[in-house]
Amino acid sequence: MPAAQTLNPMVEARIASKFEKQQAMKLLDARLLLVKPGEVEIEMPFNMAFTQQNGYIHAGILTTLVDSACGYAAYSLMPPNCGVLSVEFKVNFLSPALGEKYLGVGKVIKAGRTITVCSGEVLAVKNGIETLVAIMQATMMTMVERNE
Amino acid sequence: MPAAQTLNPMVEARIASKFEKQQAMKLLDARLLLVKPGEVEIEMPFNMAFTQQNGYIHAGILTTLVDSACGYAAYSLMPPNCGVLSVEFKVNFLSPALGEKYLGVGKVIKAGRTITVCSGEVLAVKNGIETLVAIMQATMMTMVERNE
Amino acid sequence: MPAAQTLNPMVEARIASKFEKQQAMKLLDARLLLVKPGEVEIEMPFNMAFTQQNGYIHAGILTTLVDSACGYAAYSLMPPNCGVLSVEFKVNFLSPALGEKYLGVGKVIKAGRTITVCSGEVLAVKNGIETLVAIMQATMMTMVERNE
Amino acid sequence: MPAAQTLNPMVEARIASKFEKQQAMKLLDARLLLVKPGEVEIEMPFNMAFTQQNGYIHAGILTTLVDSACGYAAYSLMPPNCGVLSVEFKVNFLSPALGEKYLGVGKVIKAGRTITVCSGEVLAVKNGIETLVAIMQATMMTMVERNE
Repeated sequence: MPAAQTLNPMVEARIASKFEKQQAMKLLDARLLLVKPGEVEIEMPFNMAFTQQNGYIHAGILTTLVDSACGYAAYSLMPPNCGVLSVEFKVNFLSPALGEKYLGVGKVIKAGRTITVCSGEVLAVKNGIETLVAIMQATMMTMVERNE
Repeated sequence: MPAAQTLNPMVEARIASKFEKQQAMKLLDARLLLVKPGEVEIEMPFNMAFTQQNGYIHAGILTTLVDSACGYAAYSLMPPNCGVLSVEFKVNFLSPALGEKYLGVGKVIKAGRTITVCSGEVLAVKNGIETLVAIMQATMMTMVERNE
Repeated sequence: MPAAQTLNPMVEARIASKFEKQQAMKLLDARLLLVKPGEVEIEMPFNMAFTQQNGYIHAGILTTLVDSACGYAAYSLMPPNCGVLSVEFKVNFLSPALGEKYLGVGKVIKAGRTITVCSGEVLAVKNGIETLVAIMQATMMTMVERNE
Repeated sequence: MPAAQTLNPMVEARIASKFEKQQAMKLLDARLLLVKPGEVEIEMPFNMAFTQQNGYIHAGILTTLVDSACGYAAYSLMPPNCGVLSVEFKVNFLSPALGEKYLGVGKVIKAGRTITVCSGEVLAVKNGIETLVAIMQATMMTMVERNE
């Protein structure tokens, strides 16, 4: 994992620990690629088990990837005694998701006391070439003293 | 599966066939519960493998369930030589998703030649009691002669 | 205005008072048609000044109408010392908005302590016939002690 | 208006002409600030007539501004014999919209044959300082031979 320049190591450790407990991330065979303050990247491989009838990754699976990236990005800027919750999100699908692996990128646009707004992207990587396949606009919520 | 009163049996057979080919539906251990013209219900069981760090079903997994229900609902009203594609969707999460099983319900609000707008719900079922845990508003697209 | 059966008259008066202070509602020549607990209807006339280049009402003007209906619907279930804020919304446009008048209907789907989720509709009324022209899914927020 | 480096002057003229016919843009006292291929900026002044009860610009009015910017941005990349239609959009409101004027910026993220996906921003300008107050994710549609 690349070193996060300015991130509190405690925060990075908390996110790595939360990520480990996410059964859904194991289901996607996903790994945490980057943690910076307000930005998180998660990678998952192509897997036939995630596909629709046409052989592309299911829109909901791509959403699972990028929702997690956005959630952790929001979480990276929250106080220690808090948890994060997806209030809602909206995703546009731009291109068929063809690739050997997929990158979910979540970035904080505005971090408020209660509400954090994030912007997310899914990139499909094929032969080293990245294609933007989906974009997300998400609303996350700080849950005080709900951090496990 | 309940009999669909007015649905062309051909359409029901096509949806069942498409559903069988969806690896992502197998991943969720999902089954097609109801097919009516413009309405589809899909059920999935609770599974620890689908959860977040707090033990609730991941928002993206619930999205996968209800996106499929909306997609098939849209597809049920499309001409035979067409496929369906998720253009975009938006989901609000209302309550923690606690239940033994989950019901994804997709309904067509407006079926156009190119664009079909759907409304979706996710219900968590616990001890026979249904709780609305998420709502979706989705835009589906008719892909002419893309039906496999 | 039809009598609201179970609504606290204080709440109806508060909403009517808030509505009066909304300059944007005056701009649309809008009037409050119905206030029930968790449901509000607002009506506006057709006006060339609200149209796009093709003579239909601008999507943003329809959004203004139904966002207000959803906001007041959320507000109708909030404690007295609170204000309401639109966190976000998503609107699908279903049909060209042709009519003599337009009805914005907002309904609360889930009222939480901080977050209220609403569902909205815009109906175009032409020769007494209502056509659904837009649907909204909105997230409203309770602002404690921000009520003016 | 700044010169658009690579834009077909025909396109710029078509957008300016369409803008002139938009009654809703006159209502907002809006002016076209920038037209580039796939990017459009529109400006409107603060006006008490656009406000909510708390004195901020109504969420729907900001939406009208940025929806138009996104629509024209999509239109700038469409073939000559086409019109543009808002299929749907989603807007998050980040900060109270305080300013002397407001800038709606629309950018094309992906231009397809039928569907164009745009990203929009609303900036409030106060004493020369720009604050991001809203972000939009929008789906536009090409209407063939519907150009008036």
